[in-house]
Amino acid sequence: MENRINAAEARQPSHLLSAPTGSESPQHDANQGRDGKAVGFVLVHAGAGYHSESKAKEYKHVCKRACQRAVEKLKAGALAVEAVTAALVELEDSPFTNAGMGSNLNLSGEIECDASIMDGKSLHFGAVGALSGIKNPVLVANRLLQEAQKGKLSAGRIPPCFLVGKGAYHWAVHHGIPPCPSEKMATKFSLSAYKRNKRKMELAEKVETEYKQTKKRRQSSENQENDSGSLDTVGAIVVDGEGNVAAAVSSGGLAMKHPGRVGQAAHYGCGCWAENAWNLNPYSTAVSTSGCGEHLVRTILARECSVAVQSEDAHQALLETMQNKFISSPFLASEDCVLGGVIVLRCCRCVGSQPHQDIQALLVEFLWSHTTESMCVGYMSAQDGKAKTHISRLPPGAVAGQSLAIEGGVCRLGSPVD
Amino acid sequence: MENRINAAEARQPSHLLSAPTGSESPQHDANQGRDGKAVGFVLVHAGAGYHSESKAKEYKHVCKRACQRAVEKLKAGALAVEAVTAALVELEDSPFTNAGMGSNLNLSGEIECDASIMDGKSLHFGAVGALSGIKNPVLVANRLLQEAQKGKLSAGRIPPCFLVGKGAYHWAVHHGIPPCPSEKMATKFSLSAYKRNKRKMELAEKVETEYKQTKKRRQSSENQENDSGSLDTVGAIVVDGEGNVAAAVSSGGLAMKHPGRVGQAAHYGCGCWAENAWNLNPYSTAVSTSGCGEHLVRTILARECSVAVQSEDAHQALLETMQNKFISSPFLASEDCVLGGVIVLRCCRCVGSQPHQDIQALLVEFLWSHTTESMCVGYMSAQDGKAKTHISRLPPGAVAGQSLAIEGGVCRLGSPVD
Repeated sequence: MENRINAAEARQPSHLLSAPTGSESPQHDANQGRDGKAVGFVLVHAGAGYHSESKAKEYKHVCKRACQRAVEKLKAGALAVEAVTAALVELEDSPFTNAGMGSNLNLSGEIECDASIMDGKSLHFGAVGALSGIKNPVLVANRLLQEAQKGKLSAGRIPPCFLVGKGAYHWAVHHGIPPCPSEKMATKFSLSAYKRNKRKMELAEKVETEYKQTKKRRQSSENQENDSGSLDTVGAIVVDGEGNVAAAVSSGGLAMKHPGRVGQAAHYGCGCWAENAWNLNPYSTAVSTSGCGEHLVRTILARECSVAVQSEDAHQALLETMQNKFISSPFLASEDCVLGGVIVLRCCRCVGSQPHQDIQALLVEFLWSHTTESMCVGYMSAQDGKAKTHISRLPPGAVAGQSLAIEGGVCRLGSPVD
Repeated sequence: MENRINAAEARQPSHLLSAPTGSESPQHDANQGRDGKAVGFVLVHAGAGYHSESKAKEYKHVCKRACQRAVEKLKAGALAVEAVTAALVELEDSPFTNAGMGSNLNLSGEIECDASIMDGKSLHFGAVGALSGIKNPVLVANRLLQEAQKGKLSAGRIPPCFLVGKGAYHWAVHHGIPPCPSEKMATKFSLSAYKRNKRKMELAEKVETEYKQTKKRRQSSENQENDSGSLDTVGAIVVDGEGNVAAAVSSGGLAMKHPGRVGQAAHYGCGCWAENAWNLNPYSTAVSTSGCGEHLVRTILARECSVAVQSEDAHQALLETMQNKFISSPFLASEDCVLGGVIVLRCCRCVGSQPHQDIQALLVEFLWSHTTESMCVGYMSAQDGKAKTHISRLPPGAVAGQSLAIEGGVCRLGSPVD
């Protein structure tokens, strides 16, 4: 496999550096958070997959709204974990994303969702897998996290961090999260995609059955990728004014997946990661992933990226991780096409170079990288008036699954930019 | 929390060094494997938890039988992944272990099992979670692994590596694995433990409800650990004559768990890990864990141990990992009691010190460590006549969940011992 890094994409484009800055927002008084300043930053994604030009506007729009929801929470003094949940609810509610409403249907024509959330402050984690009948799976994941933080259950029982299927559904309803009939979660688009995929699958199986008589099983399927375009798991990462980070991810899973299949969005270390700075880690880090669940699970990609960006040059570290521990990972050696994307944020307290600068300012570096055709992202600081959105694409000629794109920016929160 | 390492347990006891050796077995001709020699090694566990003296004999006996099953496979020329599966089936079939037959019942009085398997050669992984109605969950995990190795499904769909609940059950039955009614999997012992735990829980909840009126929720439960003694997940790790490693784990989960709860046994990187040597890793490693699933998940303990024992001194590396990345892990800082155990194996090709020695001999180092009261293990080389078993216990005065025990041995396969 040729693993080409696209030199053109391999540096931070200058227009993105220091993009969302405090100097753009004159509304400090109106946006006071708990520290008297509206600080905080959110980066969201609407999936690494293929985002057609025709739907680009919708994808960008939902990313923008998700950023705004998170920033509203931050401005109201919410912690990162609450803000990230608010962003996810907005992303799940969009019928255009493959999460919550409008999720891919599985082989049986049902919706089963995965979601997880991690709080960098408490290092607690909550996840649900193959969950049907709940409009916002991230709310269940968040509630599991919150409940686990309260300590043991009656008779010393340890609270669960990961629930699946019917059990997860009943737990959610018992904890006051309203049920939503599955048929209300399917959209016209997801239903027609299901019918199209089903026909395609039946045709492929017919062809393969005939083919099998002369050649080894399944080799014929290599060039028959389903047109899901539907790796568009959603996610978000947030840092709040206290420097706490949080990350979340939500997915309807692969189109035509087997019922009960759980992907990276419910898998610890694979779908999201958040870890506040502590004595061995100088940076707080948050990561959310998207793409082919099995590839992201088998490389524990969210955690790998988090560990990597503790090194000095975050951009270089992420590029090497995506190249060496994802595209060229020995764990995926048998795969001809390694599909995924990540959003990454790291931050630290910084000392300004001028005497008047706030020494408690937060320096936030944010990056996204993907091996898929495209990835839709949005980002916003609490000091910005509106979110920026971007559909990142592999450069012309690059091969999806074998090449990568990487971009990002820097933002200083709580003090003027140098 | 005081994190005391038990000096008395912190070195390899000399009686274990080079314990199972080729020189003990005169049956080389009868035990020919694919290389003309019966080589290979298996280490199994019947859980880290509490093993009463009264049941010690049963636990040792099932470990012995599991080792024998794996060795029979190795002698017949099977790869590590087949041998480890055979060991797990034996462990699951025992009504004394908390896996397969006789598993803990959940809150609703049902059995839901988790299991996973990893093949160090292909680096493929298969897992099932919250699976009911299948006697041997490891067979489903193994079948998922085997199917994934065949490549893509029809229409380019990626095969699942992790299935849960009803979907996992239907997949298993569709793939020829026979169903087994749940009521046949419950034993007299598991049913009476369920009734006892349920009464205890109801009582605790009553007490807590009254207590809550004056004090904060749940604090009263701290001293009311349920007497599950039932962290006894089972697992095995194997190296075959070609030096391939494999690992597997299977669990009925915590007693009185919420339906749908999935523990470490189904979690990638947490329940088991196996990775053949490659250019960056000089050793092949295999790990299987047991204990409190949530603690093992949040520390990704199997993979952490695998990474650690790539360093020169495996014993020291495992000790430090159990101490720093488990007992004192920042991810478990809020836990007063960190419960788990691991079995670890690493091996490399070694050059004998004498000219007549086989330069292709395998040097196998094996270790177990636990923070629970006890851990039951068994081990056997393909050259041995019978398995050795051992119930490892914390030394008197050590506090479970805060101290650890560590032991192990070395065995050279395929050439005389120095």
